[in-house]
Amino acid sequence: MTHHLNAADEGFVARLAEALGPDAVRPAEPRYLEEPRGRYHGQAAAVVRPDTTEAVAAAVRLCAGARVGIVPYSGGTGLVGGQILSNGPMPVLLSFERMNRIRDVNVIDGILTAEAGCILADVHAAAGEVARIFPLTLASEGSARIGGLLATNAGGVHVIRYGNARDLCLGVEAVLADGTIVRGLSRVVKDNMGYNFRHVVIGSEGTLGLITAASLRLYPRLAETATAWASVASPADALALLGRLRGALGGTVSAFELISTQGLEFLAETLPQVTQPPAMPGDWRVLVEVDDGPGGNVGDRLEAALADAIEAGLVGDVLIAQADAQRAAFWRVREMIPEANRAIGAISSHDISIPPSRLPEFIATAGPMLGALDPGVRINCFGHLGDGNLHYNAFPARGESRDRYEPIRASVSRAVHDLVHEFGGSVAAEHGVGRLKVADLERYADPGKLEAMRRLKQAFDPLGILNPGAVLA
Amino acid sequence: MTHHLNAADEGFVARLAEALGPDAVRPAEPRYLEEPRGRYHGQAAAVVRPDTTEAVAAAVRLCAGARVGIVPYSGGTGLVGGQILSNGPMPVLLSFERMNRIRDVNVIDGILTAEAGCILADVHAAAGEVARIFPLTLASEGSARIGGLLATNAGGVHVIRYGNARDLCLGVEAVLADGTIVRGLSRVVKDNMGYNFRHVVIGSEGTLGLITAASLRLYPRLAETATAWASVASPADALALLGRLRGALGGTVSAFELISTQGLEFLAETLPQVTQPPAMPGDWRVLVEVDDGPGGNVGDRLEAALADAIEAGLVGDVLIAQADAQRAAFWRVREMIPEANRAIGAISSHDISIPPSRLPEFIATAGPMLGALDPGVRINCFGHLGDGNLHYNAFPARGESRDRYEPIRASVSRAVHDLVHEFGGSVAAEHGVGRLKVADLERYADPGKLEAMRRLKQAFDPLGILNPGAVLA
Repeated sequence: MTHHLNAADEGFVARLAEALGPDAVRPAEPRYLEEPRGRYHGQAAAVVRPDTTEAVAAAVRLCAGARVGIVPYSGGTGLVGGQILSNGPMPVLLSFERMNRIRDVNVIDGILTAEAGCILADVHAAAGEVARIFPLTLASEGSARIGGLLATNAGGVHVIRYGNARDLCLGVEAVLADGTIVRGLSRVVKDNMGYNFRHVVIGSEGTLGLITAASLRLYPRLAETATAWASVASPADALALLGRLRGALGGTVSAFELISTQGLEFLAETLPQVTQPPAMPGDWRVLVEVDDGPGGNVGDRLEAALADAIEAGLVGDVLIAQADAQRAAFWRVREMIPEANRAIGAISSHDISIPPSRLPEFIATAGPMLGALDPGVRINCFGHLGDGNLHYNAFPARGESRDRYEPIRASVSRAVHDLVHEFGGSVAAEHGVGRLKVADLERYADPGKLEAMRRLKQAFDPLGILNPGAVLA
Repeated sequence: MTHHLNAADEGFVARLAEALGPDAVRPAEPRYLEEPRGRYHGQAAAVVRPDTTEAVAAAVRLCAGARVGIVPYSGGTGLVGGQILSNGPMPVLLSFERMNRIRDVNVIDGILTAEAGCILADVHAAAGEVARIFPLTLASEGSARIGGLLATNAGGVHVIRYGNARDLCLGVEAVLADGTIVRGLSRVVKDNMGYNFRHVVIGSEGTLGLITAASLRLYPRLAETATAWASVASPADALALLGRLRGALGGTVSAFELISTQGLEFLAETLPQVTQPPAMPGDWRVLVEVDDGPGGNVGDRLEAALADAIEAGLVGDVLIAQADAQRAAFWRVREMIPEANRAIGAISSHDISIPPSRLPEFIATAGPMLGALDPGVRINCFGHLGDGNLHYNAFPARGESRDRYEPIRASVSRAVHDLVHEFGGSVAAEHGVGRLKVADLERYADPGKLEAMRRLKQAFDPLGILNPGAVLA
C-alpha cells in the first residue's frame, strides 16, 4: 500500500507546539534516532511528548490533517527497527515518556492501570508494593515502556506460565489515526460486549492505533521458588524433561530456558567474571524455575522430579539453588548470554519459534545447513524452549571478524528463515516485524492473512500516517 | 449500517446444491430454527452443510455474489439469538456439522487441531486419550461445537485458571465474507508475524469471518484434585477467601463458583432428587476446586487454607469431598442450578461481569433496586465469582407466574444493565451479544469502540452478508 505523506516542516512543528504547549515539542535528540543494534538511524522533525490522552489525540489529528507520518516512540529498546524511520518524508516522533502515571492499583481486581509511558521496572515495583507481580519479565525492563511492550506483544522468560504481553492485558485506551479515542480499560476477565479491539491494536506495532494506557493483570507473589540447572544430551531430551515437569509439577513451572555449551563458551570468553554453572555431562543446559504458594514444597518436588528424570536417563546432572544469591547467579548466566553474543558479534540473529515437536529436527538440520555455507560458522541457540521460541544466532569462526562473513550474511538469514517456515514456525516470535522483517512477512505469510492485514490497515489508518513502513510496506 | 440483501430463493438454493453437491444442501428442519430459551424463531431457505474449507469458501462466494445473508450454525446452544435470524430477506444457514474431524493431536506441542464442527465433548475425549485436557468446560459441552465456542469466545467454570476460549486457541483457519481463506493454524505460542487475525474473528459471532478449524491448546491432566464447599456470610467474604486461596495455593485454583441460599432453595423445590450440601452457617456457598500434579498434596493444602480462613472468621464451615463420587455430587449441585432456574421460570436473566472489587456493592444495590420495582421479586445470583462473572437472574414471588411480571420485565432488565454499566462491568460477559443485546451494545459501548467495531465490520464484510443483524444492527 502506497500512501502519499508530507514532510513535517518547521511550520508544522510550530503548529504542534502551539496546540500542545512548548514543553510538549522538542528537537529530536540523537538518542531518539538510534536503536540497540545500531542498524538503523532515524530522522524526525521533532519529538512530540504529550502528557494526556487528549493531547495525543490532538497531535494525531494535526498529523492526519497535514498527512505527516508519526513514529510512535516508547522505550526505544526494540530490536527490529519499529521505532526508527530512516527515509521518506520527514515524520515526527511521538514519545509517551510524559504519560508515565500508574493510574490505579486494585488488589481485589488484580489490575494495575498504567499509562503507556510507564517503565516496566516501575510497574514491577508498584505491583510488589501490594505483594503482587506483573509477570512480564525481559532483559530491557529498566527502559522498556508499557506502550511499546504491548504494541509489540513482548514475550520474555515467563510466557510459559503467564502468556505474552497481550495475555497480561485486559483492556486498552488508544488513539486511532484520525484522533478518535477508544476508551476500553476493562477490569473484567469476561467481556464479550462486541469485537475485541484491544487484540487488534496490541501487537500492531503502532500501525493501527496508539495505546495510551492499559489495564494490566497482576498475579500473587508466590512464597516459594525453586531454581535448578539440569543438563541434557539434546534438545529432544530437554523437551521430554519439560513434559515430565509439567505433568509432575502442575502449572507451577514458570521458566524453562535452554542454553548450549556454545553459549557458555562465549560467556567464558567475553565475560569471565560471570560464575558459570558446574561441569555436567551433556551438551545442553536447562534453567528451570518453579513457583508455588507456602507449603507447596517446590524445592523437594522439583528435586524429586529431576531425580526421576536422571533415573530415566533423560538428565545428566542437576544443581538446585540453595539460596537466593545462588538463584540470582543461575539467572545471571542466562541474562548475560545476549551480552556475550554482542561481544562476539553475530553474523546474523534470529528470533524464531518452531512447534516444539519439530525443534530437535530443526536444530539438527539448521547447523549442517549453515555449515555448508561456511564451515567455520558457530551457532549459539538458546532461549524459551517451552514456548518453542529460540534465539538462533550465527557467529564467525573463532578469531575471525564478522566482516569476513558479510557476503554470506543475507544467505544465512534467508536459509534460516526458509527453514523456519518449512517447519511451520515464525521468524518474528517475540520481537515483532518492525522494519527489519517487512519483506519476510510478505514472503512467508499466508496470502489470506496478508489480505486480512491489509484490510485492517486500510480500516484503521487509511492515510498511512501511523508508523509508516513498519509491518506492512 | 444498513446493507441491501436479497432473499435466498429456490433458484439460489439449487445453485448451491449444484456447486456443493446435493448432500451439502438440505431443507431447514425445525431444530435449526429454534434456540434453547425459545425466544427466537428463525427462518432459512436451506441448510448448507459443507464438508471442507474449500466448500465453505465456495458457498460464501455464491452468497456474496447474490448478496444473500449467511447465518452460521454451530451447536445451536447459544443463549442470545446469535444463531437465529427471524426477519429480513431469507438467509441460508451454514452448518459446520460435517466438518467434524480432529485433524491432529500433538502431545509435545500441546496442540489439538479440530474442525469447527467438532463437538466439545469429543475434543475432551480426544485430549483424554493422550492424558491431556482441553480446559473449556461448560454445561452444553455435549452439543456445543468448536466453531461456535470460538465465535462467541465462550467462558465456563475454568476461566479463572485457563482463560476464555480465545486464550485456549493458538490459531484459526477461517473464510472471509468474499470467500478468501485465511490459513493460520499456528502451533506456536509466540508468533508476532504481523497483525493477530485470530483475535479479530474469535468473539465476532460469525459477523467478521467464519472459523473452519482451530489449533487448540492442551494442558496436562493433573493427578490430584481437591473439591470443597465453603460457606461465607457475604460475597465480600467470598472474594477475600479467593484472595487467600490464590496466595496460598499458587496457580492451582481451577474453579471458584458462588451459590446463594436462594439457588439451593430453588434446587430443593424443583429438583429434590439432587443431594444438597449440608446446612452451614452463612447465606452463601462457594464451590472451590484445586488441581495439581502428584505430590502436590492439594487436599491437605486446601484443608489447611480453609481452616485458616475459618480461624480468621471468613468462612463458616467447610466440607471437602472425600472421593470422586462426592466430588461429582458437589458439582451436580452447581450444574443443576440453571435447570432449577428454568423450572422456576425467570422474569429476566443476566450474564454480567463486574470488577470483583465492586461486586459486593453491586449485589447490595441491585436487590433493593429490583425490590422497588416489585417487592416480591426473588434474585438468584450465582456463578464464576473469580472472573467477576455472575448470572444475575430475577424470578417471580413464590407461587406466582412470570406472566404477571411481563409489564416490568423490560424495566428489570434495563435497571440491571444500567447498574452493571455504572459499576464498570459488562452486560455480555460470556454469552455474547447475538441479537438479544444489540441495543445494549449501542447504548453502553464507548463511542470510540463502536467506531472501531464499525470499521472492522466494513473492512471484513462490506456487503453485510455474515450473520446479518447480529452484534451490530
